[in-house]
Amino acid sequence: MTTPIVTLTTDFGLSDHFVGVMKGVILGICPRAQVVDISHGVTPFEVTEGAYLVAQAYRYFPKKTVHVVVVDPGVGTSRRPILVEAAGQYFVGPDNGALSLVYSQEKSKVRLIAAERAGQRYFLKPVSRTFHGRDVFAPVAAHLAAGVPPSKMGKPIEDYLRPTFEKPQRAGKRTWVGRILKIDRFGNIVTNFHVNEFPDLDQKDFSLSIGPTQIGVLAHNYAECGPGELFLICGSTGYLEVSVSQGSAAKQIGCEMGAPAELMIG
Amino acid sequence: MTTPIVTLTTDFGLSDHFVGVMKGVILGICPRAQVVDISHGVTPFEVTEGAYLVAQAYRYFPKKTVHVVVVDPGVGTSRRPILVEAAGQYFVGPDNGALSLVYSQEKSKVRLIAAERAGQRYFLKPVSRTFHGRDVFAPVAAHLAAGVPPSKMGKPIEDYLRPTFEKPQRAGKRTWVGRILKIDRFGNIVTNFHVNEFPDLDQKDFSLSIGPTQIGVLAHNYAECGPGELFLICGSTGYLEVSVSQGSAAKQIGCEMGAPAELMIG
Amino acid sequence: MTTPIVTLTTDFGLSDHFVGVMKGVILGICPRAQVVDISHGVTPFEVTEGAYLVAQAYRYFPKKTVHVVVVDPGVGTSRRPILVEAAGQYFVGPDNGALSLVYSQEKSKVRLIAAERAGQRYFLKPVSRTFHGRDVFAPVAAHLAAGVPPSKMGKPIEDYLRPTFEKPQRAGKRTWVGRILKIDRFGNIVTNFHVNEFPDLDQKDFSLSIGPTQIGVLAHNYAECGPGELFLICGSTGYLEVSVSQGSAAKQIGCEMGAPAELMIG
Repeated sequence: MTTPIVTLTTDFGLSDHFVGVMKGVILGICPRAQVVDISHGVTPFEVTEGAYLVAQAYRYFPKKTVHVVVVDPGVGTSRRPILVEAAGQYFVGPDNGALSLVYSQEKSKVRLIAAERAGQRYFLKPVSRTFHGRDVFAPVAAHLAAGVPPSKMGKPIEDYLRPTFEKPQRAGKRTWVGRILKIDRFGNIVTNFHVNEFPDLDQKDFSLSIGPTQIGVLAHNYAECGPGELFLICGSTGYLEVSVSQGSAAKQIGCEMGAPAELMIG
Repeated sequence: MTTPIVTLTTDFGLSDHFVGVMKGVILGICPRAQVVDISHGVTPFEVTEGAYLVAQAYRYFPKKTVHVVVVDPGVGTSRRPILVEAAGQYFVGPDNGALSLVYSQEKSKVRLIAAERAGQRYFLKPVSRTFHGRDVFAPVAAHLAAGVPPSKMGKPIEDYLRPTFEKPQRAGKRTWVGRILKIDRFGNIVTNFHVNEFPDLDQKDFSLSIGPTQIGVLAHNYAECGPGELFLICGSTGYLEVSVSQGSAAKQIGCEMGAPAELMIG
Repeated sequence: MTTPIVTLTTDFGLSDHFVGVMKGVILGICPRAQVVDISHGVTPFEVTEGAYLVAQAYRYFPKKTVHVVVVDPGVGTSRRPILVEAAGQYFVGPDNGALSLVYSQEKSKVRLIAAERAGQRYFLKPVSRTFHGRDVFAPVAAHLAAGVPPSKMGKPIEDYLRPTFEKPQRAGKRTWVGRILKIDRFGNIVTNFHVNEFPDLDQKDFSLSIGPTQIGVLAHNYAECGPGELFLICGSTGYLEVSVSQGSAAKQIGCEMGAPAELMIG
């Protein structure tokens, strides 16, 4: 008998009761579930950051894992709840881009979780206007973890949100404009330049610019360069990151999440 | 075979080993338990905040769940440990008001956890003077989760602490004085005006004052009002909250937990 | 059938996906495991702090628990991964001192986790240069939790790192120089003076100096002294701590982790 796994990625923080309540709801419906926190430290309302975090994490979870993403500034409005089937796993969250880095990278089926059908059976009642993590997403995830098939949650749709933040845009023959996806705890700057699309940089002449700062060195580990020297490194996510040995690259450069990064090659 | 659940609500934070140690103690006694964090971000020594958090969470947990609340400025003094049976669940913590929002709202039985009786059998030895979360509350909770009946922990008492922070006081024919129970991660201001006692506000003329700020609008979701406009909303807890769309109402008003809030109706 | 337990102590923080990913890897290999966080709030790169936290926690966990410590500024360099068997439990982490407070206190066997042998079988492939928590330590811990014997991970070694921060040094007939191991959430200052080596202080004339501040009172609980009065107390860890009633001793003194503390007796 396998252990069902439910992961949570939210902007709820850890000081309130919100996350604990979601876990209570999940365990009440699926007592055998293991609930795993990906992060509750998403910057409030930053859908892109939640999308990034779950996209970095899901590959390391077993098949059938249910991932819940709740970064949901439109809670209580007409924005729709969706269920994504991809990579043998399930993802539930609002249709606001929070799951877009999954369905842009994997063969996916996206379903609308219909309040009038699935909701009657699977939502908590009454559904509040402010906490769908508790009333909609946690119970739907728990029922999926307990074995309810995705088809019970709603019909496939095609008109889900497809944001464009995930890939750098070509800006010239030798130039691409990307952006900073995330600044991690250590101050590493994660760009959206993925090593699969920009391979073999160490055999090329290149320069990455963030504001007035230019980085032209690609290192293989954090200890390779001297103190204070900024370098690029292929991060554990596959994205190129800007780092500095035992220091915060983000503080040294003075940049923020969402800012542009320009890569020039050759 | 059901999964026993133990929840934790403390002011221990997450940087120290305190919470992990409590979980080790619990799993050593009751290996099948699922331990769920409600919050460890209670402001140090703020008993009211711990009381609020567990009271918002317990309804969403299954019967027999054991809730541990450790916000305990009096640890090592003569303040007593208690066990509350309410709503088909168990609650353990110090008799300092941390469990008062449970027993003021539910039909309850409150027991003294007697060191000389239950302690001999269920506490960790020696009991330290500074960490009863580890030595008293975690092991008592784990034994309850493992099936030890509450009656083994001690006899019912009536003289447990009954604080008065939980309800607004009537101050005039049309006026009630309440207080701010909690400011959540998003800057929403949770008051102790409960929608059950102040229903149908949207059909009345009303005004809520916090310091010099007056709020006279009741919204149904966070996106209903324009940027910067303060509004009341019935929060997911049932309490009236002051919010502002995609911003922090607490920062905008400049108020803190515990401050008074005055409601005038009609 | 017992529940295998894996604990995690890292400097990864909780805002990124790092900790969640480690849990996904562990549950993929050992689905029955309970994963318990000791702390992810270790100051980045502060090996001593990680060593302190796991050393305070492990005693409270059942036999066979696997403790993972990842505070790893040398990740991707030639520093070695090790496995410590001590106190009936297992510890994995980098050979940089992170496990030194375990093997300096317990009869231990220390093994090198050899990439060319154990790694072929137990590491994630390819092993990244920046995230051995995911690729090396989490999978090794999960395989141990699932029942793989330690001998499969590598051969015993003797030349593991033995740092010297753990014990005060005698500086004169009546004087010892120790250091601040940790400042906890409440501002209590944990020194490395252990009550087992400095017993019966309450029956002696003593003075502990941190910078220009001298403390000469030993209290038995936090409420014993008046507001603002600094005192020593034997903490729940067995180490002497400097505290102040319902306040932060660290803020009042203005000291930091790692600073020296001098004890004069008699």
